[in-house]
Amino acid sequence: MSAAIRKDLYVSRLSTAGSSIRREEPVVYASTPPPAELPAEALEQYARDGFLVVPELLDAVQIEQLNRHIDELLAGVEPDQERAIREPGSLLVRSLFQVHKTSAPLRALSRNPRLLGIVRYLLGDDVYMHQSRVNLKPAFHGREFFWHSDFETWHSEDGMPAMRALSVSIALTDNSNQNGALMVMPGSHLDFYPCAGQTPPNHYRDSLRSQNYGVPDEETLRKIADRCGIMTPEVPVGSALVFDCNLMHGSNSNITPYARRNVFLVYNSISNVPGEPYAAAQKRPDFVASREDLEIL
Amino acid sequence: MSAAIRKDLYVSRLSTAGSSIRREEPVVYASTPPPAELPAEALEQYARDGFLVVPELLDAVQIEQLNRHIDELLAGVEPDQERAIREPGSLLVRSLFQVHKTSAPLRALSRNPRLLGIVRYLLGDDVYMHQSRVNLKPAFHGREFFWHSDFETWHSEDGMPAMRALSVSIALTDNSNQNGALMVMPGSHLDFYPCAGQTPPNHYRDSLRSQNYGVPDEETLRKIADRCGIMTPEVPVGSALVFDCNLMHGSNSNITPYARRNVFLVYNSISNVPGEPYAAAQKRPDFVASREDLEIL
Repeated sequence: MSAAIRKDLYVSRLSTAGSSIRREEPVVYASTPPPAELPAEALEQYARDGFLVVPELLDAVQIEQLNRHIDELLAGVEPDQERAIREPGSLLVRSLFQVHKTSAPLRALSRNPRLLGIVRYLLGDDVYMHQSRVNLKPAFHGREFFWHSDFETWHSEDGMPAMRALSVSIALTDNSNQNGALMVMPGSHLDFYPCAGQTPPNHYRDSLRSQNYGVPDEETLRKIADRCGIMTPEVPVGSALVFDCNLMHGSNSNITPYARRNVFLVYNSISNVPGEPYAAAQKRPDFVASREDLEIL
Repeated sequence: MSAAIRKDLYVSRLSTAGSSIRREEPVVYASTPPPAELPAEALEQYARDGFLVVPELLDAVQIEQLNRHIDELLAGVEPDQERAIREPGSLLVRSLFQVHKTSAPLRALSRNPRLLGIVRYLLGDDVYMHQSRVNLKPAFHGREFFWHSDFETWHSEDGMPAMRALSVSIALTDNSNQNGALMVMPGSHLDFYPCAGQTPPNHYRDSLRSQNYGVPDEETLRKIADRCGIMTPEVPVGSALVFDCNLMHGSNSNITPYARRNVFLVYNSISNVPGEPYAAAQKRPDFVASREDLEIL
């Protein structure tokens, strides 16, 4: 794609943040009647608030099998494995990436028909996996994720052109308001908030542990929170949270003895495959932002 | 007091933690009928769970006046003021100590008659202020307080003999499960959990920012949590949380744009004034553990 025809709708990472930009694209792309797996109420909430909950996606047996499988994956992590990201100031694994390629059970999970029916409808297109990971918020020492819009990073650092992607976070333990559940600012997905500061080289190595670029300034966050409020969606174990790529979200630390464990899957429309980064010198590696061997799901 | 007659019921800070010790003292000391300000249900909860909530202790005008007053106190904090404790890795004030001596409005608050009626009944004695502070969990950057029993520290580092003290945390902003509200393990106040590790010199300087001694090990905490559960008492702005000195408690970080601000008052029975520390080489300074000019409230 030549620079001339590649217009950047969402300029970010300049020296100053600049004003918010009204979202150009739809939130729900399909215009046909929604599939059976997507109740009208959930669809409305997704359009309005930027998220929905899919209850009871997994049963107790599946939950146990997946947890045992992930225990094994974690036990097999090598000390210098790049796709295993550690907690800041600790050797505990915070995220294990690219699991849809390295694990048969998680590959199967990413193709769950009920989930895919919902995802394809919301994005109005065939989809592929932009990123996948197991997100662990370890017991006692799990640290916070500061507020951010995923799209701001995927656009700036990965070159994802449009807001036609979404995340699915499947709870393998209860996500409670005590163990660092995801908080969202409902409705914040309808505006793009540019972030100040040029992306440093190899930023992903730090940002996946503790993000310092691609986060709005405090005054902006306060304004968004005052306007939108902050919600902590209830996501019991076995359920899934589906949220728009541009929804402002974050989570607090976890000092409880109970780990928070989610499988995190990012689906992107095949019409929205990233090109060159909009605001970074280098592409991020394939384990964070898939470009090789893309498969339509 | 001579060493011979001063028996240590709650040995802690040895090289290994050792087993838990069943509490010797009562939780509720008075045996007369409770005063009008202490409903039977709240009293039962305090005895059983180790805490109670005093609703609507302050009205909207008082809340606003106190918040404005605390803003002024914070604006007047000197860079090297010892009784102003900073957040780990930041210059934001986390706690401002000894406010019952340095602030007339907070001195008055510590003598609130409704509160004192409850406190005197629970401790079954005249009381004085062992410690006072404003606890700030700053917006965006407020960090966690790890699990601990206050009594373990007051006993080991301050020489408080018995479990005949309690804390009152008065909410000057809403304490929500999004901005790092206090979590408690109900019923944990009925056992003492010794902690491993000799107290380092001047430990208080670090421990008030981030505690590493006087915290139970992870296996012990997991067992207590599995048995007692974890609760986040709802403490709306203007209300107060009253909790036993030996209740296991802690709180997560605060990434929201809303600070969590509490006035924290520690009342001790006048029959329980600390002597020499049980497990520390030096006493902590008066601003953390009052010994000078004690006043019966």
